[in-house]
Amino acid sequence: MLSLKHLSISSFNENIAYIHKDCNAYKVDDVSSLTKVEIHGGMKPIYAFLQIVDDEDIVQPTEIGLNNEAFEKINIPEGANVSMTIAPSAPSLVSIKRKINGNILNAGEYSSIINDITSHRYSNMDIASFLVASGSFMIAPEVLALTESLIGENTFHWDNENIVVDFHCLGGVPGNKTDIIIAAIVAAYGLPMPKTAAPSLTSCSGVADTFSVLANVNLDENKFKSIVKDHRAAIANYNSLPIAEASKTIASVERHLGLLQNQHLAASILAIKIAAGVTHLVLDIPVGPTSRIKSTTEAMRLRKLIEYVGDMLSIEIDVVITDGSEPIGNGIGSVLEARDIMKILRNKPDAPQDLLEKSLFLAGRVLEFDPQLRGGQGYVVAKEILSSGRALDAMNKIIYAQGKASQPKLGHLTRDIVATQSGVVESIDNTRINKIGVLAGAAQYAGAGLDLLKKVGDTVEQGETLYRIHSVNSTDFAFANSVVDGNTGYEINTKGVY
Amino acid sequence: MLSLKHLSISSFNENIAYIHKDCNAYKVDDVSSLTKVEIHGGMKPIYAFLQIVDDEDIVQPTEIGLNNEAFEKINIPEGANVSMTIAPSAPSLVSIKRKINGNILNAGEYSSIINDITSHRYSNMDIASFLVASGSFMIAPEVLALTESLIGENTFHWDNENIVVDFHCLGGVPGNKTDIIIAAIVAAYGLPMPKTAAPSLTSCSGVADTFSVLANVNLDENKFKSIVKDHRAAIANYNSLPIAEASKTIASVERHLGLLQNQHLAASILAIKIAAGVTHLVLDIPVGPTSRIKSTTEAMRLRKLIEYVGDMLSIEIDVVITDGSEPIGNGIGSVLEARDIMKILRNKPDAPQDLLEKSLFLAGRVLEFDPQLRGGQGYVVAKEILSSGRALDAMNKIIYAQGKASQPKLGHLTRDIVATQSGVVESIDNTRINKIGVLAGAAQYAGAGLDLLKKVGDTVEQGETLYRIHSVNSTDFAFANSVVDGNTGYEINTKGVY
Repeated sequence: MLSLKHLSISSFNENIAYIHKDCNAYKVDDVSSLTKVEIHGGMKPIYAFLQIVDDEDIVQPTEIGLNNEAFEKINIPEGANVSMTIAPSAPSLVSIKRKINGNILNAGEYSSIINDITSHRYSNMDIASFLVASGSFMIAPEVLALTESLIGENTFHWDNENIVVDFHCLGGVPGNKTDIIIAAIVAAYGLPMPKTAAPSLTSCSGVADTFSVLANVNLDENKFKSIVKDHRAAIANYNSLPIAEASKTIASVERHLGLLQNQHLAASILAIKIAAGVTHLVLDIPVGPTSRIKSTTEAMRLRKLIEYVGDMLSIEIDVVITDGSEPIGNGIGSVLEARDIMKILRNKPDAPQDLLEKSLFLAGRVLEFDPQLRGGQGYVVAKEILSSGRALDAMNKIIYAQGKASQPKLGHLTRDIVATQSGVVESIDNTRINKIGVLAGAAQYAGAGLDLLKKVGDTVEQGETLYRIHSVNSTDFAFANSVVDGNTGYEINTKGVY
Repeated sequence: MLSLKHLSISSFNENIAYIHKDCNAYKVDDVSSLTKVEIHGGMKPIYAFLQIVDDEDIVQPTEIGLNNEAFEKINIPEGANVSMTIAPSAPSLVSIKRKINGNILNAGEYSSIINDITSHRYSNMDIASFLVASGSFMIAPEVLALTESLIGENTFHWDNENIVVDFHCLGGVPGNKTDIIIAAIVAAYGLPMPKTAAPSLTSCSGVADTFSVLANVNLDENKFKSIVKDHRAAIANYNSLPIAEASKTIASVERHLGLLQNQHLAASILAIKIAAGVTHLVLDIPVGPTSRIKSTTEAMRLRKLIEYVGDMLSIEIDVVITDGSEPIGNGIGSVLEARDIMKILRNKPDAPQDLLEKSLFLAGRVLEFDPQLRGGQGYVVAKEILSSGRALDAMNKIIYAQGKASQPKLGHLTRDIVATQSGVVESIDNTRINKIGVLAGAAQYAGAGLDLLKKVGDTVEQGETLYRIHSVNSTDFAFANSVVDGNTGYEINTKGVY
């Protein structure tokens, strides 16, 4: 038996146990690399990776240390007696080997995999294996089975609401934060919209990141529910809500690997929305040569898949395929995106028109879930709600209810990227722009990003600014500068001028 | 700038950096999950995973702690000034995404992947992704490129030796430790055999594990070379030698995942042998319905692949396909296997004849690499060397030179698995026997394992012992007992009796 010690170390979702190299209860020579152990003493065994310590200030030979993640899970006080055994590998790993070998897994297998992930029997390596193995191909019933497993046990119920709406965009287009504007319009209209937003996986800023510039997004279940009840909408970082736990663990590995397959993304989005109690969802798939989804064929295939899963799980989904050929709005990065959003809600004349129009169009689609609204009238109603200032009022109430954020500053290190020739902006490369923004620090710092002063179709004079890089620290600034000169992401058509 | 502190924590090959949550130099809020950082201050930057600490006894806000692995690599004293940046992801991860999407990677891509693994730019998750992505299919030139990359920069050269031999078995058959007997015979004959042995990946015991019961296997380069020079053979755990570093890192992930694809295995074996300076290799592929390689077709495909890679890299390989239908020898697990080996070398009448005969046959194949030996004479020469006691003498000298081990005891917790009916042993399931052995603790404890008293073709009376389980601790013993009753791994044909 060893005495439990809490070591205040956060390891980002991985349980770690520390024993001394002269551990009284365990012969360390027998411990091989990457050993996973089962620790007994709490209500149920927890699983952790073992690390060996040679410093009695950290753990003594009579102790076992647990990091924050593991200590929270074992849920017994320091000093309690615990024992440890080598953990047998998770039974469902057999299914992952079957998937590597090209097999189709059944619903029971997906359920076991997700259960093992939820109970932390999978290491991050195991999760990576699952993602890669299933990433090469999954048939529709597999995506359905994965979605169903990801929903988890805890789901939200919205009493007395027949229709609970949400909106989600599949991503791949920088700046494109219609979500927050749509939420404001829908709230003002009166449909309940409990928006679960994700932080960035591979982009400069996720919806949760952008909204965190304006309001606290880490809402617990009660607060989230009460704000939706009082104000018809709330926008929470879904990580703060007790739903779809396995998909959070999976997302942390996806984020690390920079790996995001369409089928995993579809399963994860639908699972989160269903767990949040959403009954009607508008899903935006932007298509463009440099967007996540590159062709209409690919978008259509994904739409059919999503509709199939949605129908099987009884969630009404309106999949909208939109133009993802260039960034939407001017700002890319949390602070700049929040600026664009507030300009639109405030009806400012210099608000980005593309973001404004797209938001109205999509908000209209959400509003049309209301059986009382005449078909085709959504856009007009949305426009009226926005221009009358009711959307801004609704947003201000939501921000106030969630807690106003201490708005971070825009990065003070700037560089203007200028046109080397006069002409017309012919194209803007989403992938390239996202990469420059990420290197400038946008995925790490709210204040970093790119401010696009010119968009496709704009005429530019030689020397005129195309966009401005903002960085918060000099390392990121140097990174962005070192790549931007090779390829700015902008193509200028000079023919019209010469 | 932060002050460097060494935290004596071993994390099995992963570099970890610890900063305080109130870190003076870094805003912890900006650190997202599974963040990899680049630490500057040593000769070249090192990469590490970041963990956040809230305990000044571990690290203070002015410090950065590094675990053993990272501290050894940065190679500067405690108290030195270091700085930290978020690490951009390894450039070669793009190739892994290409592989996931079904592409064939070129030699340059394999080389970049292995370089990034060697310089610890890959996390274990990234390595898992690589293994799974490339595990579903690799064409022969890819296996060649991987092998070439895995060889690494440091290779051994054996001056004045035209022929440097080794033997390797692909595994999958419990007990089958011909390697050590072959080394003794080859050493006595006089061919140089610098045997690089691996610890168990998925089996009850690897060659390095079994030999560690008899001698110290952790030899450094100088000692390994001088023993081969003086005694013509040495058997070292290849992890102790400075060769093929990336394959060690990869093996630690394979061991954790329990995932071992033929093409990775072939590339890794050949790379290690070539790096060790081996010019002539006998490679045993045991085939059987419950062995790693299940059919002659599969074995032939693998043989062609190995011959192709060997030819391209100028190593002479004699691939021998052998009978892998049941365990070889009586002992399974390090102590029991070492017992069998010593019985054979000592010409004991109760030595297991199958292990003896197979060792002589394969040793003969190795000896026939000697141009002076008449074709077909290898077996006879090997048999004479063994029966004359010269192999035992050679082995004793090697053991003495490497350092005699303090032989661990056989596990004292035992259970006899008995025949429930009289008859003839019809089959023994390698996979099942290996699983029961691993559960009994054999992969962790040298003294755990199974002692097979009956083999295929033996007659048994009802109640007679088929095999004996040995465990070192009661948890493992209980594990083994809990599964063995469902399926002992033995099939008894009772027809001949009734």
